[in-house]
Amino acid sequence: MTRQQLFEQIKAKRSFLCVGLDTDIRKIPAGMRDAFHAPLFAFNRAIIDATAPYAVAFKPNLAFYEEQGAEGVEQFEDTCRYIRGRYPEILIIADAKRGDIGNTSEMYARAFYDTDLADAVTLAPYMGCDTVEPFLKYDGKWAVILALTSNKSADDFETLQLANGDPLWKEVLRKAKTWGTPDNTMFVVGATRAEMLKEVREIVPDHFLLVPGVGAQGGSLKEVARHGMNSRCGLLVNSSRGIIYASNDENFATAAAAEARKIATEMSALLDSLL
Amino acid sequence: MTRQQLFEQIKAKRSFLCVGLDTDIRKIPAGMRDAFHAPLFAFNRAIIDATAPYAVAFKPNLAFYEEQGAEGVEQFEDTCRYIRGRYPEILIIADAKRGDIGNTSEMYARAFYDTDLADAVTLAPYMGCDTVEPFLKYDGKWAVILALTSNKSADDFETLQLANGDPLWKEVLRKAKTWGTPDNTMFVVGATRAEMLKEVREIVPDHFLLVPGVGAQGGSLKEVARHGMNSRCGLLVNSSRGIIYASNDENFATAAAAEARKIATEMSALLDSLL
Repeated sequence: MTRQQLFEQIKAKRSFLCVGLDTDIRKIPAGMRDAFHAPLFAFNRAIIDATAPYAVAFKPNLAFYEEQGAEGVEQFEDTCRYIRGRYPEILIIADAKRGDIGNTSEMYARAFYDTDLADAVTLAPYMGCDTVEPFLKYDGKWAVILALTSNKSADDFETLQLANGDPLWKEVLRKAKTWGTPDNTMFVVGATRAEMLKEVREIVPDHFLLVPGVGAQGGSLKEVARHGMNSRCGLLVNSSRGIIYASNDENFATAAAAEARKIATEMSALLDSLL
Repeated sequence: MTRQQLFEQIKAKRSFLCVGLDTDIRKIPAGMRDAFHAPLFAFNRAIIDATAPYAVAFKPNLAFYEEQGAEGVEQFEDTCRYIRGRYPEILIIADAKRGDIGNTSEMYARAFYDTDLADAVTLAPYMGCDTVEPFLKYDGKWAVILALTSNKSADDFETLQLANGDPLWKEVLRKAKTWGTPDNTMFVVGATRAEMLKEVREIVPDHFLLVPGVGAQGGSLKEVARHGMNSRCGLLVNSSRGIIYASNDENFATAAAAEARKIATEMSALLDSLL
């Protein structure tokens, strides 16, 4: 999916919501867990159908599928194929945080892109551009690189001050933006650091940012938009637990739709200045 | 597996070789690729049986299995189970380079440890201790944290100079060693940087180091031992392609055994001073 196509979808849906499919076997309704051979996929299918009108991206988190072994990975694959088939306009981000040397990273890129399972994969920058390059060789696919995350231990290394006076995350942005272009690279910037989005935008004015941490992790959507939005939106704001576990009983899909709709309504207002 | 058990195995086998199972469907003998429903596993089984006498660890590289989809992941699992059943004394390192926030990292730890598939998992440090903590909660299991890798773009960030004058990788060692102990934490240090192992040892004298890059990537075993060995060996030196693709025809397992034996013989001499 191209940047233009993504922006067109944002305009059409008046939303820049990414729904995170962190589907935990322990948290889905008990009835569903027992009734289905592939319960993660069954749960996802209901969530996807309920929230697709309000979402421009789905982001399955690989850890939650891998935790169920090869059968879980199969349900990740089926989830991606289901989105592709029913909602081909929606961006699929495999939240995998992969990062390795060139020949290994090439295999990770193949895993997600040769099969067209995903449009974008999250990547860890520690090992440098070797990790990212194989993902940039696919037309219409994206590398989504960790820059400044919203977890509590992000300060262990991401915000360390370098000899040049900058924190590490700024050097990651500066270097990583030279590997690709705003048409094939996004960056992860946590919503709990909304005030830092201004500094992010000074370095990468045009790139899409994937912003987790709104909702369960406490970030404010309004602040994110104020500091992070650019002329083509440039934001994908993710919510996972707040949407998919909005209710933990049989009406979970209806509750998820209501929650997604609420966020999309707020986003629509924030997009007013652009559209 | 405890550090003492690992050291006992090293003494018994007079080897600190880790065989990397980077099993690429394109590189295994054509006959094997066609004959087996699970060719990666079939290949691995032959390699494992052939090299087990010379190896104290096996390190399947997840990328190569994930590239084959859920069926590939199943072959990763079968590979681990096969090693467990036949060679319970051998350490299994899942080379996965995982790294995420706490609740996600917990799912990755479950994926590898609740099922007892692996004894150790490689982890990326960028997001800080949240990534590592869930892996330290399992008795007898290990977190193997990236410090200084041997790929060409390691200099993008790992060797960046911090405001305190040190390169980033030293700060990673310093901080990460406080999260666990030498009994549950190892570090990855590439063999192409053998001279830097001296500096590594000043910070983490007691930890085991996982050292890739001997063989195909050009590092020297003798230099690694000279600068990196401690009183309980403290080294696991990995070779992947040099062993498993020592021959690409039907005698691949015999060729792999010969190559592993050659390295183990060299290691035996290097262990003389300790044993």
